[in-house]
Amino acid sequence: MAKKRKEADGYADALHELQIGLSALQRRIIADGTKLLIIVEGRDAAGKDGMIKRIVEHLSPRDTRVVALGPPSDRDRRAWYFQRWSGHLPGSGEIALFNRSWYNRAGVERVMGYCTDAEYAEFMATVPMFEQLLAHCGVTLVKYYLDISKGEQRRRLAARAKNPLKQWKLSPIDQEAGKRWKAYSAARDAMLARTHSVAAPWIVVRADDKRQARLALIRDLLVRLGEPERDDQQLPDPGTVFLYDDAAHEKGLIAR
Amino acid sequence: MAKKRKEADGYADALHELQIGLSALQRRIIADGTKLLIIVEGRDAAGKDGMIKRIVEHLSPRDTRVVALGPPSDRDRRAWYFQRWSGHLPGSGEIALFNRSWYNRAGVERVMGYCTDAEYAEFMATVPMFEQLLAHCGVTLVKYYLDISKGEQRRRLAARAKNPLKQWKLSPIDQEAGKRWKAYSAARDAMLARTHSVAAPWIVVRADDKRQARLALIRDLLVRLGEPERDDQQLPDPGTVFLYDDAAHEKGLIAR
Amino acid sequence: MAKKRKEADGYADALHELQIGLSALQRRIIADGTKLLIIVEGRDAAGKDGMIKRIVEHLSPRDTRVVALGPPSDRDRRAWYFQRWSGHLPGSGEIALFNRSWYNRAGVERVMGYCTDAEYAEFMATVPMFEQLLAHCGVTLVKYYLDISKGEQRRRLAARAKNPLKQWKLSPIDQEAGKRWKAYSAARDAMLARTHSVAAPWIVVRADDKRQARLALIRDLLVRLGEPERDDQQLPDPGTVFLYDDAAHEKGLIAR
Amino acid sequence: MAKKRKEADGYADALHELQIGLSALQRRIIADGTKLLIIVEGRDAAGKDGMIKRIVEHLSPRDTRVVALGPPSDRDRRAWYFQRWSGHLPGSGEIALFNRSWYNRAGVERVMGYCTDAEYAEFMATVPMFEQLLAHCGVTLVKYYLDISKGEQRRRLAARAKNPLKQWKLSPIDQEAGKRWKAYSAARDAMLARTHSVAAPWIVVRADDKRQARLALIRDLLVRLGEPERDDQQLPDPGTVFLYDDAAHEKGLIAR
Repeated sequence: MAKKRKEADGYADALHELQIGLSALQRRIIADGTKLLIIVEGRDAAGKDGMIKRIVEHLSPRDTRVVALGPPSDRDRRAWYFQRWSGHLPGSGEIALFNRSWYNRAGVERVMGYCTDAEYAEFMATVPMFEQLLAHCGVTLVKYYLDISKGEQRRRLAARAKNPLKQWKLSPIDQEAGKRWKAYSAARDAMLARTHSVAAPWIVVRADDKRQARLALIRDLLVRLGEPERDDQQLPDPGTVFLYDDAAHEKGLIAR
Repeated sequence: MAKKRKEADGYADALHELQIGLSALQRRIIADGTKLLIIVEGRDAAGKDGMIKRIVEHLSPRDTRVVALGPPSDRDRRAWYFQRWSGHLPGSGEIALFNRSWYNRAGVERVMGYCTDAEYAEFMATVPMFEQLLAHCGVTLVKYYLDISKGEQRRRLAARAKNPLKQWKLSPIDQEAGKRWKAYSAARDAMLARTHSVAAPWIVVRADDKRQARLALIRDLLVRLGEPERDDQQLPDPGTVFLYDDAAHEKGLIAR
Repeated sequence: MAKKRKEADGYADALHELQIGLSALQRRIIADGTKLLIIVEGRDAAGKDGMIKRIVEHLSPRDTRVVALGPPSDRDRRAWYFQRWSGHLPGSGEIALFNRSWYNRAGVERVMGYCTDAEYAEFMATVPMFEQLLAHCGVTLVKYYLDISKGEQRRRLAARAKNPLKQWKLSPIDQEAGKRWKAYSAARDAMLARTHSVAAPWIVVRADDKRQARLALIRDLLVRLGEPERDDQQLPDPGTVFLYDDAAHEKGLIAR
Repeated sequence: MAKKRKEADGYADALHELQIGLSALQRRIIADGTKLLIIVEGRDAAGKDGMIKRIVEHLSPRDTRVVALGPPSDRDRRAWYFQRWSGHLPGSGEIALFNRSWYNRAGVERVMGYCTDAEYAEFMATVPMFEQLLAHCGVTLVKYYLDISKGEQRRRLAARAKNPLKQWKLSPIDQEAGKRWKAYSAARDAMLARTHSVAAPWIVVRADDKRQARLALIRDLLVRLGEPERDDQQLPDPGTVFLYDDAAHEKGLIAR
């Protein structure tokens, strides 16, 4: 079994420890009435589903919501852009994880031409206002961008095509992911540069190695949310997870 | 019949003409994909229900929504404060009328102690952000405050108690309306002063005379939304309806 | 003013008295926790909007809901047929009025070919089950069919086209209403015959005279719901409103 | 690692094969527009969460919904009893899994006194009507009851209390689960006997051995839904999973 091999060499133990940390975090969130919103973005096959699965694996379902919305309905398209997600924002004591989010407009919609230039411009101008509003209303907002390389994406999409359990993940848009690699890179760069803020920061996670990425992201989340360190605790690996800054591109930390 | 007497002396004809104007406005809103949100606020018995009734009387129900939310549920109280209303915002081509709104927090909740000081402060700080966001997202937002005098409120509440068709409007809170007149005045003054903005202006309507108030408000709405004037058109009476400004209190235009 | 003339000769007074009766009924419904669902059906221009308006005019909005759903979305079409309406059923102490309802499938959808034969057959077979279920779950269900003659429909649709306040009511389907008069009659006959039940009876209202129809329907509703009679009370006119039975067609009581 | 040990001896391989079968089933459901509703019931700690997790692990999230509702709100309590779940029924091409369901009323609500005798009686009388209605409306409905023994429940609840990742599952009601074992047995027996039907059968799964239970339930589901057998396919173990019948109690197949 591939799965068993993967879970060897300390990964499973480390994940287990981190999940205990997440449980403690959740108890604190419930006690304090915190509203935590975690946005997980990234290209196709970047590992968003698997990442979220590990985060929520042992959390209380009643206090955790994973939100992965389908394509917008006709009604959605006529409504206030943020309305679809408004109903899914976390309440006091809740953790909401958005698997893709309003940033669709800055990524797939922009690249594939699913929105007009005016809609894109409106989104880029208003999303910082919306996120700042949420922050002022007491929502703690953390945005993770899972970044994979072109070669790794190609390998994963090819593997999906062969795996009978993953074929549902394939879509015609996936085939565009490789072809439009550069357009997606440009869209991502604009998104990170223009929507990173103190109130709603982007944290980049290098995700070519799934296990490293998972451990690093969860460690980052625990540290960022002020979960007390334990003696034996490993800190998040700064080569794998780091707060976005404009210099990240120059330093070659983000896939081209 | 009281009703018939009321509709004498030109009121009914004037209202009829204005409702034709509203129909024309709605056709333009549908054609242009405008999103129009009209908030109607005011003390108990200020005439909000009757005002909205006349506005929507001949509008297309499918493109018009009147929103009068009940008290917040437990779930609502734990959620993002603006969430309850987010689902009711107007889509393209729609007119939404809010009979009371998020401003509950600045009025009844503040005066009756239904929210904490911190919740009130957060609301007053964030509502301008939210309304500005909506404006940037293409929502046209107009806020009318129906202002009545203390004597008129007393008369109306007393009349309600006697009218078998209006008794459902009576609530224990109504009895507080008179007792806490000054506290409501102070809450209103703070609300108008701090939440009036270019993006979401407050328009005050003197509402002791219901018929005048209705004609004036609808005229103001048509002019404000750019409905073309006709030769015979009466302009809104500036003594009855006017854009809020800080000097309004000094000029004695707002009920104390 | 046309309106004033209409309200002459006792109609307004009679309506006023009946609305007081409706208020009393509502108080009882709230006190008893009754769930009352009133379905109002009828051809285009039969007077459904105006009827419902008079019923709810002085009811408490918080305890009354008027439900007029737009066309089904893509999602609605894939869902359980009754799902769209399920969310709008009355709770304890509530009156829900459906302006059109699930019976769309037996009327406009059947006649205009908006549903398949199989969907129609499934609907006709399952709607009595659904309504019986609701009855067993404590929902009081009354279904009114407003019946107009061909000539009256023609006159009303023509008047709409000329009235600047009613043009929004016109739709391309209206033009079909006259052309397909017979198909609509056949669909209505099948609907009445097959979906009339003790648990959810059809009551036919002859609606060529709007004012008579309104008074008769409200009187019927009050009597049917057990509102105590007063000495001066007029009973519903059996020539205008009557419980459906198969012989109604033979007796010529229903428009052909 | 406990996890690795558990997945030894063929369980992981067998589960993997069955999940490939579920993927095939889902493709067929999407192609045929089937609406599949799977209800999973059972006492506290019977293994409902884990069971559902294995079923959905590799299904397409967009076409699968897991529904685990929290306690009813005030509004829910006043509404039609089935309304809370109506909005979550599967549409064409969808699989919905209910983790607990409307049967709360026949279990925890009955035993703990959260509903009145009249509400319980109404539920028991109407649930077969509702399920038959769903069946006639094209919903395929399968109800699994996970049955554990008293000793096993005690062990699992004790283990939860010690496992830092499972403490969120503990609730004060759990402590009642053991004390009220007999009352829960009686409630379950009444539920199975009175709500088992051809349209919506109960299938009992002996769940003391979690792994066996998972394999048996998924095998049963695939066979029941007509998924074609493969040469190497193991059939569901009739000692572990079986269609409910009244004799099951006498045969001692159901935990006392």
